[in-house]
Amino acid sequence: MNIITDISEMQKVADSFRLQGRRIGFVPTMGFLHEGHLSLIRHARQMFDIVVVSIFVNPIQFGPSEDFDRYPRDEDGDLAKCKAGGVDIVFLPDAKEMYSTQDAVTVSVERISDIMEGAIRPGHYRGVATVVAKLFHIVKPHAAFFGQKDYQQCIIIKRLVKGLNIDVDIVIRPTVREADGLAMSSRNAYLNEKERRAATVIFRALSSAEHLIKSGVKDMEHVRSRIQATLQEEKGLNIDYIQIVDPDTLMPLQSMVNNLVILVAVRLGNTRLIDNVHIWP
Amino acid sequence: MNIITDISEMQKVADSFRLQGRRIGFVPTMGFLHEGHLSLIRHARQMFDIVVVSIFVNPIQFGPSEDFDRYPRDEDGDLAKCKAGGVDIVFLPDAKEMYSTQDAVTVSVERISDIMEGAIRPGHYRGVATVVAKLFHIVKPHAAFFGQKDYQQCIIIKRLVKGLNIDVDIVIRPTVREADGLAMSSRNAYLNEKERRAATVIFRALSSAEHLIKSGVKDMEHVRSRIQATLQEEKGLNIDYIQIVDPDTLMPLQSMVNNLVILVAVRLGNTRLIDNVHIWP
Repeated sequence: MNIITDISEMQKVADSFRLQGRRIGFVPTMGFLHEGHLSLIRHARQMFDIVVVSIFVNPIQFGPSEDFDRYPRDEDGDLAKCKAGGVDIVFLPDAKEMYSTQDAVTVSVERISDIMEGAIRPGHYRGVATVVAKLFHIVKPHAAFFGQKDYQQCIIIKRLVKGLNIDVDIVIRPTVREADGLAMSSRNAYLNEKERRAATVIFRALSSAEHLIKSGVKDMEHVRSRIQATLQEEKGLNIDYIQIVDPDTLMPLQSMVNNLVILVAVRLGNTRLIDNVHIWP
Repeated sequence: MNIITDISEMQKVADSFRLQGRRIGFVPTMGFLHEGHLSLIRHARQMFDIVVVSIFVNPIQFGPSEDFDRYPRDEDGDLAKCKAGGVDIVFLPDAKEMYSTQDAVTVSVERISDIMEGAIRPGHYRGVATVVAKLFHIVKPHAAFFGQKDYQQCIIIKRLVKGLNIDVDIVIRPTVREADGLAMSSRNAYLNEKERRAATVIFRALSSAEHLIKSGVKDMEHVRSRIQATLQEEKGLNIDYIQIVDPDTLMPLQSMVNNLVILVAVRLGNTRLIDNVHIWP
């Protein structure tokens, strides 16, 4: 496994793989790798000649009062996991080299960046779209892998590559969950024991909503109320939003049309958690 | 010479050239090709295995009251000139395919997009940066060629590729001029006979400023006044700006440091003309 920190070296290595006709699969991460990331790596390993993982806690996607400084980091552990997962290259850029120019260049995906997570975290998705565009230009992958846990991010990245004609396939993989249903997330490390137990309510609420819909309930306002009631059983949990939306446009749905996504964001103490479920009739 | 209109076909053709190790030089244009474009094409032809020219009047870089509809077009003439210039591929995209997504994706180069041309034409450089990023993702060139006549645009595109780590060399070539000094521009076609004669004052003003500086004048406010006085000799010419700036940052200079650029924008009737000169001591 090769560790590359220099941007132009990464580009040269990517060019040489491409000249040899070898196809590059890319898993961009912020590190502190968990089973969700590892499942993306395994999938990339099966499909591609070369697997590149980037580890970069991207400062520009954090708001000034957010958790950039305390975001969990474990470089040695991450490198060991990448090596065990058969990764060819870990790209570990330096924040100073990533954001060195005098005038900022930013990429914006309009409208869908301003709702849900984007409404609560202004500028977050501009930071995400910008760093993903940069990483794609540096790693030059044929495909990139993202977890469905960050559903809105997945849709924004699909819009990004379509809107700017970036020739990278976006592969979305299912959310990986703990045994009790909690979606894997690096931020789960923030939870104390009590919060960790309380967090299981999110998947229970989403699963019962899925059950309701599959058993024939059509009124999405009713479904939404049931999710809210379930979540509110946990004292100390605050709801940021519960949204039932069209899977492509992320526009709210009053009733099931073809298929839909339910997205939930809550706060437990100082920790924000998000999750979602994609439901077909 | 191959004419390609489909975005994904252009990407496939570019991929296959790159797999063969052939290097692609790219000249993006809005068509109505003049000697300025042709000198870029000749230069690309000398340096690269494959020369791609795009012809696309980019709607999103025009303001609502600007000249998008009447911008001069001559597809047959352009294709003949490309063929004569030894161009391998002309990329002729359709505006509907270029801007088909529901939510706009835009690229912004902050600060330097908001001064001079950007102050007079709000959103112009966001439109330029966005279409250039798109074209680079479609044509996949190793280098792209731009004329110095659009000096601010050149600097913005250099910032764009640096800021987003786009692996394309930006080659800036000197402004090509008519015999009487007027900078070649597709918009010169708008000028009537009287305006065309009046337009020669721009190059005279810039040349005498260069002469002043090279003869030792240090005070840039004095130089600026002299340019203004020269331009004002032409009745019916309105000055949008006269700026003496640092070549890289585009920040105003009070005195000559290493080298500088003087940029001028004027209106003659309904036609806006820009020009500039880069001066070393």
